[in-house]
Amino acid sequence: MLSAENSDPGRLEWMVGSPPPADKIIRFSDPDFFNFPRSRWVVCHNRQLMPTLGVSRGLGAPVPLARRIDWTIDAVRFTPIGGSREMTWAQSLEANYTDGIAILRDGVLVFERYFGCLGEAGQHAAMSVTKSLTGLLGEMLVAEGVIDERARVDAIVPELAGSGFGDATVRQVLEMTTGLRYSEDYADPQADVWLHAAAGNPLPKPSGYAGPRSYFDFLRTVRKEGEHGAAFGYRTVNTDTLGWIIARATGKSVAALLSERIWSRMGAEQDGYISVDSIGTPFAGGGFSAGLRDMARIGQLMLDNGVINGQRLVPEAAITRIRAGGDRAAFEKAGYALLKGWSYRGMWWITHNAHGAFMARGVHGQSIYVDPAARMVIARFSSHPLAGNAANDPITLPAFEAVANHLMR
Amino acid sequence: MLSAENSDPGRLEWMVGSPPPADKIIRFSDPDFFNFPRSRWVVCHNRQLMPTLGVSRGLGAPVPLARRIDWTIDAVRFTPIGGSREMTWAQSLEANYTDGIAILRDGVLVFERYFGCLGEAGQHAAMSVTKSLTGLLGEMLVAEGVIDERARVDAIVPELAGSGFGDATVRQVLEMTTGLRYSEDYADPQADVWLHAAAGNPLPKPSGYAGPRSYFDFLRTVRKEGEHGAAFGYRTVNTDTLGWIIARATGKSVAALLSERIWSRMGAEQDGYISVDSIGTPFAGGGFSAGLRDMARIGQLMLDNGVINGQRLVPEAAITRIRAGGDRAAFEKAGYALLKGWSYRGMWWITHNAHGAFMARGVHGQSIYVDPAARMVIARFSSHPLAGNAANDPITLPAFEAVANHLMR
Repeated sequence: MLSAENSDPGRLEWMVGSPPPADKIIRFSDPDFFNFPRSRWVVCHNRQLMPTLGVSRGLGAPVPLARRIDWTIDAVRFTPIGGSREMTWAQSLEANYTDGIAILRDGVLVFERYFGCLGEAGQHAAMSVTKSLTGLLGEMLVAEGVIDERARVDAIVPELAGSGFGDATVRQVLEMTTGLRYSEDYADPQADVWLHAAAGNPLPKPSGYAGPRSYFDFLRTVRKEGEHGAAFGYRTVNTDTLGWIIARATGKSVAALLSERIWSRMGAEQDGYISVDSIGTPFAGGGFSAGLRDMARIGQLMLDNGVINGQRLVPEAAITRIRAGGDRAAFEKAGYALLKGWSYRGMWWITHNAHGAFMARGVHGQSIYVDPAARMVIARFSSHPLAGNAANDPITLPAFEAVANHLMR
Repeated sequence: MLSAENSDPGRLEWMVGSPPPADKIIRFSDPDFFNFPRSRWVVCHNRQLMPTLGVSRGLGAPVPLARRIDWTIDAVRFTPIGGSREMTWAQSLEANYTDGIAILRDGVLVFERYFGCLGEAGQHAAMSVTKSLTGLLGEMLVAEGVIDERARVDAIVPELAGSGFGDATVRQVLEMTTGLRYSEDYADPQADVWLHAAAGNPLPKPSGYAGPRSYFDFLRTVRKEGEHGAAFGYRTVNTDTLGWIIARATGKSVAALLSERIWSRMGAEQDGYISVDSIGTPFAGGGFSAGLRDMARIGQLMLDNGVINGQRLVPEAAITRIRAGGDRAAFEKAGYALLKGWSYRGMWWITHNAHGAFMARGVHGQSIYVDPAARMVIARFSSHPLAGNAANDPITLPAFEAVANHLMR
């Protein structure tokens, strides 16, 4: 497997030239367009491969982050989980195929680096970090009384009656404790997650395709398995269902609501954007791209319980509920060896560690890590070759904790 | 034909709902996706239908336009060309299916209105106004000595040797006086412009498709007809060729260069974006979308000979050359009944009227109109049902002149 340095998209010259050489062209319609190492170029260029909805920052001036860089962070040392040799923070960035990383301490930018395809004015795929944004909107609407968390899903979205979601509650969707027959094993080509992707793909369907043709149509095909509320099961379709619930309850898409309630009010530097299916539905479970510092602003908003730049954007109750965590016994059943004692709530991952840290997590290592005790936020974009955080957590989690302790020293 | 009011996309409820009703869905793959009145929704939503490249405004604060609205402009009266009855400015906006219009006088916003799909934070398809931005970049690079206007095209882009462009000069491309066998008659389904569109369409090609698969590949198929330099012929392929010349000369795409040299330096409020083909080539001849006020800023930059907010972005010589106009005799041969005495230079339309006015023009009425004598800029986005400015010029041109005279009164 190529190292971060050797798989750097600049070094591999993807899409460079007018036109690029044939073997350097990446097309959305290529079945391998997202294979490593091409994936390391794609994560910064989703919008030029597929249709997207903008998430506007509005027209006002950005609110710049104060900046006091502490390069001594580079030398912070930690021992990876299961490892025997210490590693430095600087080494961890390369090991995890980091594309950009920013650390805020008390809202001040104390560390920032870019690699690979990303720069300060670039936008990077957040993938499942998107879920935490959709979840935040969901918790906000629950706290505001717009959505009743005890309501059955089919009471809000009647089209889902009879599907696996129909008799689940909004709260079960928000915590991903729905009981569904649905496999999200990316390594299995027959897994349901690929049928979901095919339904949501905005390109015209191949001839002979007989499956569902939009995210919404796909959700209607998901069947129940077991009981709701019993176990945590990480399934992207829960977030897409939440997106549908939000759209139905507010009359606005997740993209429009995210701009209106958060992105246009938090002093963002850049617009974000979100991929859409063929009928314009934003991919609430994974389609968002944005700038790194704006992701750090989201972390700060969470750390400060819904207030940013002196303005309340999110009801405190919404964030308190997320930070309190979900059902740890239900989470335990999912069997994450590296995440013992964690839980999941409002589509955020709660560590329940001594610092009260919680995270948004994307499949190639994208993270927003909030450590309340250290008053620290880490925003990271990355493009790890392996599709699963188990591949980077042994380095990520102790590295993040070590920096928190360094800042608190 | 539906009126502006009755074809308003809000009223027709395109793409409203989660999901929208089947007959209200607009898909890029529908052959009629851009037919009127759907077109009036599409012009504000290109990015959610097709892949696009961002044209970043950078990360700094926008420079707001001073604002002193003069609603008396609404009552300005004029007589349409060929008409016998007077009309007011306010009436002209409806008659021309205006989506947004902004007037600057001495750089101050004196009039601004939005209709149809557009609002102040929206982005609208500029279509052939894109050509004037590409042309401006071309003239800038000529003025800076990066591109030799006397060079043969095939000396810069060897792939075009043997095509109709090969032995044309850069200047002939910039003035669209190339002699080409190429029809841009939108009403003829066999016209070359549709082959150009098929080549540039980013969707996978239909099975059996044997034509060129990118804008660049298409340009290589264009044949010469007649002599270069003899007559003006409005053909989008000239601008795409200019885009190729720019990319080859600078190593940067038109999108990247437009951001770097202009969009990120003019105090823009919003990012722009540009559609791309399947290999990521921006559509230099027509793919740009942006906010209305930012288009007005471009007009102001032209009016002030390359300076905006006290900063020079474009060499004065580049704009002086555009404003001086092109070969009027060559223009005359194209037979525009409504544009007697005009010329075309650097991909801008020069009126040669007493005010020295010049324009960028898009096919459904999009305009940037610069009137140096009145120190006035008009930026307009519109979505006229008819694909050709002959349909709106009889109202547009006297209306713009009347407002100029009103401001000078």
